[in-house]
Amino acid sequence: MMANCCWLRYLAALFILTNCLVFALLLDLPAFDRHALLAERVRLYETMRANILEKESNNQLGGRIVLNAKERVANELIMFEKKHELERGLHNLSNFQASQHFFRSFTKINNTILFQRLRAMPKGGVLHAHDMALCSSDYLLKLTYREHLWACVSKSVEKEYQKLLFSLMQPQVEETCEWALLSALRAEEQSDVVDKELLAQLTMYPQEEFENEDAVWRRFRSIFRLVIGLLSYAPVWEQYIYRALEEFHEDGVQYLEIRSVLPILYDLVGGNFTILNTTRAMRNADLRFRASHSDWIGSRLIYAPTRRVSDARFAEYLGNALLLKSHFPDYFAGFDLVGFEDEGRPLRDYAGELLSIQGEIDFYFHAGETNWYGTNTDENLLDAVLLGTKRIGHGLALLKHPEVLRAARLQNIALEVNPISNQVLQYIGDLRTHPAAVLFADNYPVVIASDDPSFWKATPLTHDFYMAFMVIASRKADLGLLKQLALNSIAYGAFSASERVEAYEKWNLKWESWIDDINSEMTS
Amino acid sequence: MMANCCWLRYLAALFILTNCLVFALLLDLPAFDRHALLAERVRLYETMRANILEKESNNQLGGRIVLNAKERVANELIMFEKKHELERGLHNLSNFQASQHFFRSFTKINNTILFQRLRAMPKGGVLHAHDMALCSSDYLLKLTYREHLWACVSKSVEKEYQKLLFSLMQPQVEETCEWALLSALRAEEQSDVVDKELLAQLTMYPQEEFENEDAVWRRFRSIFRLVIGLLSYAPVWEQYIYRALEEFHEDGVQYLEIRSVLPILYDLVGGNFTILNTTRAMRNADLRFRASHSDWIGSRLIYAPTRRVSDARFAEYLGNALLLKSHFPDYFAGFDLVGFEDEGRPLRDYAGELLSIQGEIDFYFHAGETNWYGTNTDENLLDAVLLGTKRIGHGLALLKHPEVLRAARLQNIALEVNPISNQVLQYIGDLRTHPAAVLFADNYPVVIASDDPSFWKATPLTHDFYMAFMVIASRKADLGLLKQLALNSIAYGAFSASERVEAYEKWNLKWESWIDDINSEMTS
Repeated sequence: MMANCCWLRYLAALFILTNCLVFALLLDLPAFDRHALLAERVRLYETMRANILEKESNNQLGGRIVLNAKERVANELIMFEKKHELERGLHNLSNFQASQHFFRSFTKINNTILFQRLRAMPKGGVLHAHDMALCSSDYLLKLTYREHLWACVSKSVEKEYQKLLFSLMQPQVEETCEWALLSALRAEEQSDVVDKELLAQLTMYPQEEFENEDAVWRRFRSIFRLVIGLLSYAPVWEQYIYRALEEFHEDGVQYLEIRSVLPILYDLVGGNFTILNTTRAMRNADLRFRASHSDWIGSRLIYAPTRRVSDARFAEYLGNALLLKSHFPDYFAGFDLVGFEDEGRPLRDYAGELLSIQGEIDFYFHAGETNWYGTNTDENLLDAVLLGTKRIGHGLALLKHPEVLRAARLQNIALEVNPISNQVLQYIGDLRTHPAAVLFADNYPVVIASDDPSFWKATPLTHDFYMAFMVIASRKADLGLLKQLALNSIAYGAFSASERVEAYEKWNLKWESWIDDINSEMTS
Repeated sequence: MMANCCWLRYLAALFILTNCLVFALLLDLPAFDRHALLAERVRLYETMRANILEKESNNQLGGRIVLNAKERVANELIMFEKKHELERGLHNLSNFQASQHFFRSFTKINNTILFQRLRAMPKGGVLHAHDMALCSSDYLLKLTYREHLWACVSKSVEKEYQKLLFSLMQPQVEETCEWALLSALRAEEQSDVVDKELLAQLTMYPQEEFENEDAVWRRFRSIFRLVIGLLSYAPVWEQYIYRALEEFHEDGVQYLEIRSVLPILYDLVGGNFTILNTTRAMRNADLRFRASHSDWIGSRLIYAPTRRVSDARFAEYLGNALLLKSHFPDYFAGFDLVGFEDEGRPLRDYAGELLSIQGEIDFYFHAGETNWYGTNTDENLLDAVLLGTKRIGHGLALLKHPEVLRAARLQNIALEVNPISNQVLQYIGDLRTHPAAVLFADNYPVVIASDDPSFWKATPLTHDFYMAFMVIASRKADLGLLKQLALNSIAYGAFSASERVEAYEKWNLKWESWIDDINSEMTS
């Protein structure tokens, strides 16, 4: 309403002046009167223009953040770099990395001063990341040097590693591939050849374009199938999770919510494992990491099995969720469903079951990760909100549902935005067209996350922050926006009130020392 | 507010029921009580879900349109075809034309029953189309058979027709190309070879991907440079415009607002022409066409010279606009500026001049045809609205400026959406991600237009309507949306009140007979 009033006032004033000007012409008043009138209109125009821009600037994400003197120093440095890169892009778009496909741009981005700054910046927590895609591929490759690791290599012409499995003897025969000890394969060919082949299949590289989302998801799932045998090996799993915490921590992250399918672990002697073992290992990794890193806030589990299952299987899921909550009240955060949303069953199918445990289990649903409009997939957004989801994963279609958007805001439901994932999975081309820009403009509660950074060789969070800052946000958005994004990740994390305060303090401590470092760097 | 209330009621009810259910569990009430409570919650959930979807459906573009019995028959046919095509796409995306690049999809689209239906449908007016890109390339090719037509062929390796010019003798030497009579060229090689070469340069085909917008626009301008010499030939210009009206009329269009740079015409004997001749020829074409087509509403001129000029030249523009208005009060609609917005000067540069004639000349500005955010280009939207523009051309960045969006709605400023143009010029990839979907969802005043259909071999309007209906609108949007789009093109055309009534009646007459035809087709 405010805005409307101020606009109406402007229109009224303009109307009057216009008529004055016309009369002035009709009555042929001396030129200087007409000039005076015109000058008055230009003044009014410029004032109004400035007001509107200021209002938009204040209302945008981070627009209400007041930077202190030291922060303003850091801001100047950062905005210098941001504007510099944008000017080059505005002058010649082919110089502008951030609007190109990430596979082409990411090495160039790594070399920018801005990226280095963002990497060092305390960015808060990552609230959307999947268990099988957390670590750098270099680390995964190291894991493949463990003994007793078998690879199932495709029989088809083009060599493809379809599965990995630790075993004392040859695993049971597969239809489409043949088992061989990786150590043996490395002995036959040069090991760097094998490494190269493996690396090529541990990420989506180098393919930038798939025929469509369906094709992308087929490739995407093939990576999951490959790594799961490597990572769900009992002696590996806890170390892998620990390593993930290290890599996220090194990237300026202090908190991590892991969406996990909770794979059943296995070992060489047919040991008996359940999801409780899987979860305990994750929690142990977190406890060990906390013990050795005082600035680490912690990590949490969002149990997120695949969405494409029978009602019976789904009932088991909810049983598991309750079980996990009772065993790990301090580690279990909530429940979600994963997988290609367009192909999976809609949330509505499970509404009855979900409502029955709504009071006991928190939901963090993926919803609206789609380009369709008016289908089960985008309407998952409606169901997620009606089911009282705490946050929405992706929600690319949210703007197409104004009622749901209004309701989500009313309930303070944050959106987990994963820019690079959305591009690599081909929901969006040029990230300047990411719909989150509209949510930024209106200061909607948004957090930036990385989804599956390992699959696109991205850093755990910095690359997504870079994209959010450079192309999703306005050219004019500054350190205030970056700080707001970090604050949001604390505000919308799965914390109790007291935990949230503690989390904030741990983040703020690092933030202030980061700001101090930049200031001393300037003065030295 | 309504929405918020109804949401709050839902949340309150849900809260109470949740607690009841928890108590029921704690107090270990008999199972059937718990089931009764759960059933109640599911009922509440489904009711709320239905309400929200109905509300969104009513609030969308065309959502308030009530179809009569005959229209409902047509609607069933159309929705059958729409759903059929969408189902195929949902089942296998590679079957789905409308999400692919138009160059790959348009022949397939032409063969669909839905496209044929839309082609026959009275779609109202086209409010955004440019003078040099109105007619089919077949017609342009015919024009190149006129005598005395010279072509300037590039000296570089790959043969390129850079210019066309009618002349009795060889035109003056050019730097980059050599002049030859087209008739002579056709005599040397086979004329179908020359035709093929020419056709290849009269459209953007077949290239689907350019490095970026800059590269697209270079190609785009080269087509303009080629056709202008062909079309601004005095004996051709009026016939060309007449032909354009024919082609638009055949495509179910009854009204056309032409944005023209008003090229200075020329002939073989060095005749003296001004923009008044150019305009008179266009108006004559329109008058002749009206005389022979009683259902034709008419056409109008929006004077739209290039935006990248000196202040002095710009002052001339405004002089021209006033001159045109005084000479052709019934034909001249208003003023705009054209050209690659990212490269041109921002509207703000001209604000003073524009304000000085604001009372006398209506504005129909291009604004925000860009993927940038926080730059002069997207801020043109703010200037366009502050200058009181009647409509906005493209406005792709409008959603990134909530204050401007609010103001535009307040002033009932319609948005001219050109889906295929936006894709071919690479502002958008998959048209399912077009931002206009958000405006459709909120019933923002939108009209669908075709911009430069000739350059992408599109029909004058039907292909853009098809895209709007299939992928920008919701899967559930029906004939109501199509009717609303047609009505909008009348509601936001440059009409006086009485003209608008007349226009509506002419459209409605055709609409009703189209509906009758479908009904009799069904009963026969």
